[in-house]
This record gives sequence, C-alpha cells and structure tokens, in this order.
Amino acid sequence: MNHLPIYSDIENAEKLLRKNSINTPLLESSLLNEALGGRILIKPECLQRTGSFKFRGAFNKISNIEQNKLKNGVVAYSSGNHAQGVAHAAQLFGISATIIMPNTAPAVKKQKTKEYGATVIEYDIQSESREKLGQAISEETGAILIKPYDDPYVIAGQGTVGIEICRDLNDIAVKPVQLLSPCGGGGLIAGISLATHQHFPDCKIFSCEPEGFDDTLRSLESGVRVSNDPGNSSICDAIITPTPGELTYQINEKHLSRGICVTDAQVLNAMKVAFEHFNIVVEPGGAVALAAVISSNVDVTNKTTIVICSGGNVDSSLFARCLTRDITLKHVP
Amino acid sequence: MNHLPIYSDIENAEKLLRKNSINTPLLESSLLNEALGGRILIKPECLQRTGSFKFRGAFNKISNIEQNKLKNGVVAYSSGNHAQGVAHAAQLFGISATIIMPNTAPAVKKQKTKEYGATVIEYDIQSESREKLGQAISEETGAILIKPYDDPYVIAGQGTVGIEICRDLNDIAVKPVQLLSPCGGGGLIAGISLATHQHFPDCKIFSCEPEGFDDTLRSLESGVRVSNDPGNSSICDAIITPTPGELTYQINEKHLSRGICVTDAQVLNAMKVAFEHFNIVVEPGGAVALAAVISSNVDVTNKTTIVICSGGNVDSSLFARCLTRDITLKHVP
Repeated sequence: MNHLPIYSDIENAEKLLRKNSINTPLLESSLLNEALGGRILIKPECLQRTGSFKFRGAFNKISNIEQNKLKNGVVAYSSGNHAQGVAHAAQLFGISATIIMPNTAPAVKKQKTKEYGATVIEYDIQSESREKLGQAISEETGAILIKPYDDPYVIAGQGTVGIEICRDLNDIAVKPVQLLSPCGGGGLIAGISLATHQHFPDCKIFSCEPEGFDDTLRSLESGVRVSNDPGNSSICDAIITPTPGELTYQINEKHLSRGICVTDAQVLNAMKVAFEHFNIVVEPGGAVALAAVISSNVDVTNKTTIVICSGGNVDSSLFARCLTRDITLKHVP
Repeated sequence: MNHLPIYSDIENAEKLLRKNSINTPLLESSLLNEALGGRILIKPECLQRTGSFKFRGAFNKISNIEQNKLKNGVVAYSSGNHAQGVAHAAQLFGISATIIMPNTAPAVKKQKTKEYGATVIEYDIQSESREKLGQAISEETGAILIKPYDDPYVIAGQGTVGIEICRDLNDIAVKPVQLLSPCGGGGLIAGISLATHQHFPDCKIFSCEPEGFDDTLRSLESGVRVSNDPGNSSICDAIITPTPGELTYQINEKHLSRGICVTDAQVLNAMKVAFEHFNIVVEPGGAVALAAVISSNVDVTNKTTIVICSGGNVDSSLFARCLTRDITLKHVP
C-alpha cells in the first residue's frame, strides 16, 4: 500500500482478523450512565489478544507481507503493547521477532513479549533512538520493520476496532454523537476515524492524551505537528510518544474535532471506574478516554458517547494504586 | 412453565435477551494455554449487565410473567448477584423490586442493588430464613417472588450463556472436550448443560464449588441431595448455598460428570490469573472454575476446556488481596 489507508483497506483487514482476533463487545453500565447523565458505551480492547488493540495492526501488517520476505522475521520498537502484538502475530506466522523496548517499560510487558517468543533488546530511552536501532537491526538481519503506527496496514488493522463498533451500533440502531479514544502516535484513532465516519459522518471524534504528552491536541490547535517536551513523565507508558505520526496525522487532522488532555490522577480514577462498573482491567494509557469522560472534559449529557479502552497491560502494583481511590461521580450538566 | 426447562425454552430466552444483554465473547490467552498445556476458553460473564450472569435469568423470568401480575412488583432473596440482576431487570420493566440480602453481603453488592432502584431488606444469616422472609413479603404485598435458581425460566435464562458458547464454538469449528462452571444452587450449570449437550452431547461438564460448600459434588457422589455444614465459611459469597436446588439438581444429576472442590487460596490465585491473562475482574465465587483448572483438579492437557467466570462484583479491598499473589503455573501432564 503506497497511499493513506481508505475504508476498503479496513474492510480487508477485518476479513483477515475476523477469525484471528476477539470481536470485543460494547459494554454498558446503567449506573454509570445515570451518574454521568448520558449513555456511555465502552469498547474494551483490553480484552483483545495480547491485552491491547495492537495485535490487530501487527497481524494485518504481517499478513500483507509476501511470504518470501518474511524469512528473516520482523523487528519492532515499542513500549510494550505493539511489542506483544508483533511478537504474538509473528508467533502465529511461525517467524522470528526482535523487539526493541525501553529499559523503563513495565515489567509485565517485557516479560510477556519474551513469553510470546520474541527476542527483547532493551535501550536507554534518554540516550538512544529506537527508530535508528530498529533501522539498523532491519538492515543487518533482513528482518522487516513493523512500525507502531506510521504504516497504512497497521492503521487499517487498528481501524477494525471502528468497524466492529459501527456494526454493533447499527445492530441496536444507535447513532453515536461522539467517540473518544486514547492517542499516542495516532494509529488507533486514525483507523477508527476512517471507519466511524464512513458509517456516521457526523460523529465527533476526540483524541485523549495525558498531561505533558498532548502533542496531538496542540498540533490540531496550531495546524502543524508539534512535539512534547522530552523531560515530561506520565504513568501512561503506552501513549507517551514524542509527536504525532506523519501518516496518522494526515488522517487525524481531517477527522478529529479536538484533543483532550487528562492528568495522571484522573487516569487512576478512570481505572477504578472501569474496575467498579465494567469489571475490566484497563492500563493507564488505555484509560485516558474514560478519564476525559468522568472528569467532565467533554459534555456527555443526553448523548451517546463511545469510549475506547485500548489496553490492559498493567503491573499489579500500579493497578493496586487505583483500587484505594474514592470516587464520587458528579453529573455536571 | 410447569415442567423442567428444555432446550427450546433456552432458545426462547435467547431471543428475548439478544437485544437486552451482552453477548460476552470467548477469551483466550496463548500464554495461559502454553503454561497449562491445553486450550482454555473463558466465558467472562463478569462483563454481563450488573456484573454477572444473573441478569439473564431475572430478565427472562420477568419477561414471562403476565403484565397485570407485575403491578405489585417483584421480591427476591440473594447474596448479591441475583439481587442486582432482579433489581435492574425490574427497573427496565418499570416495576418495583424488594431484595432480601444477608447482612454479611459485600458492601458493593448492597450498594449497587439500591442504586438499581430496589428496596433492600437485610436479614441475619444465622437466625433468619430468607425463603420464609421472601414468602411473607410476597403474600403481604402481592409482589411476585423471583427465586434465584429453582425456577424453569430462571434456569432457561442462565442457559443462554451456553447457547452463546456453542454458537461461538461452532463458528470456529471447535468441539469442547469439557466445560467447568461455578455452582451454587445450580441454575447456571443446569441451563448451560442443557444447551451444551444439545450441541455437544459428549462434552463433560464439571461443577466447581468452594471448600465447605461442595454439596453438589457430594450429592452427585451419593446420589441424593445433601447439605453443607451450616458452620462453614468461604470468600466465595456468591455460591455458598446450603444444598442443591430441587429442579436444578434433577437436571444436573443427568448432565454433570462430577463435582470439583477448590480452596479459597486457589480461588485468589485464579482471580490473579484472570487479571494477568484476560484483564478481567472476577469475584471469588466467579473464579472457582478457573481455580479448578489452574490447580490441576482436572486434566486439561491437549484438550479444549471451556471455563465460566460467572461474575465480577467484588469489593476493591478483597480484590487487592489477589494482586499480591505470586503464581507459577505448572503444566502437570
């Protein structure tokens, strides 16, 4: 594919993924709806194979590489969810995978990536470039580089999340007013936007990011791709990317209404709400969209709002921190 | 219905529930499969409306009561999951619900039952009979009693869990060798057995119970319904029923292969495994079947095993206890 992905690319990905991924349901809690004064439908991609949506893009990408080019395996860089997605997809195709991960990645993500059979190479996030390391390994070994978001097939794969949502909404004859998604490099929200606007052209789409990493929010506001201050930190390890992707941003600047930024404290509250109301485990980076909703960063009153919970790979000690939080949700009309 | 439920009753329930409940997916973790040496497919009813399968039976029962008989509402007794299922189903039908709950029920279950609009009456589990209280309220107020398991419509409603499992298995052309389900009064496993044996007559079905409450295990062994010692205790509040149901046992003695008993420690381990491998929150009573599998109480080697995780309504302080457990799964062939 030498062009930006279009809707039919997502349909093709969906056909490939149908038998190979989990069609995650839309979850709803009438008690949360009542507390917030609107209808919230959760798309729990934490239930996906490897614990995040990333499996979809990785599987679709590898499926679309000619078999003779795969003989030296694949290589990828990732803080941990794309890592597991690529490692497991490679395993299913019977090829080797090398994954470059920051030394600061959560222990559970490093461990599971290895358990999916990948070779993990750690790098120092302050002094080394993961892109250069990936390129070097690819050139040296002949392994195909699977980028985390700036790849048409990866974007199309993530877009299958959107196709499933639209199909389920059409089944119950519900039209969504708005959709909120976590946003790192922007691959997930780009794919979802393409799919959602095909079915519901008026649905507003909001990217959600953690404080200090609101590059998409600021890029949308300024009209040019901007970067984050390299000194920032956040518990949302999955989405602390430096700048919007080149391809993803071309899609997102057309489809997104605006960006929303949330604090780590709001994210921990959202993780507790997901525990209490949906019985799902959502990792910090996966919970930013729910955080935006419960923190009144977007008006949900009397509207149907789709909220993507994009992943659930979180160390148990960090998850334990959300359990002690005492949350009172207030309907702010 | 004046007879034991049959498969067509479950099909009827499924038609009613299709648009009103969540079709929970089958979840799978290749890492857990590898650790256990067999294929494990999880049916996560903790994702169901009200956080457990109980919504299905309650909704089906109320749907099948003539409308003029519902004018005085419904009454039910329950430790908390049937409570929420009945309260929420009544709310959807616009009728009142009175729920009799033990004073020892988990705080989250009491609170949510009230939030679903029900009037909660607490009773002392040691000195009072919930059945007598329920009967008295029904006679006094004209409210219809919704029994937790010994009712054909309730059993048929829970059986829709089985229909969904069989449909998903047929879609991927997989034949299950065995199915494990939590078992309290036996309504869930009775309904699932009827549905599963319609599609897969050779599938072995095992009831799973906590130590001290293995009345179904011992009843199946002795051939007569036996009771538990009233002095026993367990963290599995959802399934600490005194004896198998009268109707449910007539079904279960025909369909179940045998009972399995697990300890509270094994249950906590299973809750951690569900957290780690599936990103789902499972309550103790909902985790007994997974506990049986990971504790080698059943041979899963090279087999496809269906495991029901029946509910997820757990106080956060109890859930926190499972997070600190350090588990090494061993494949014991």
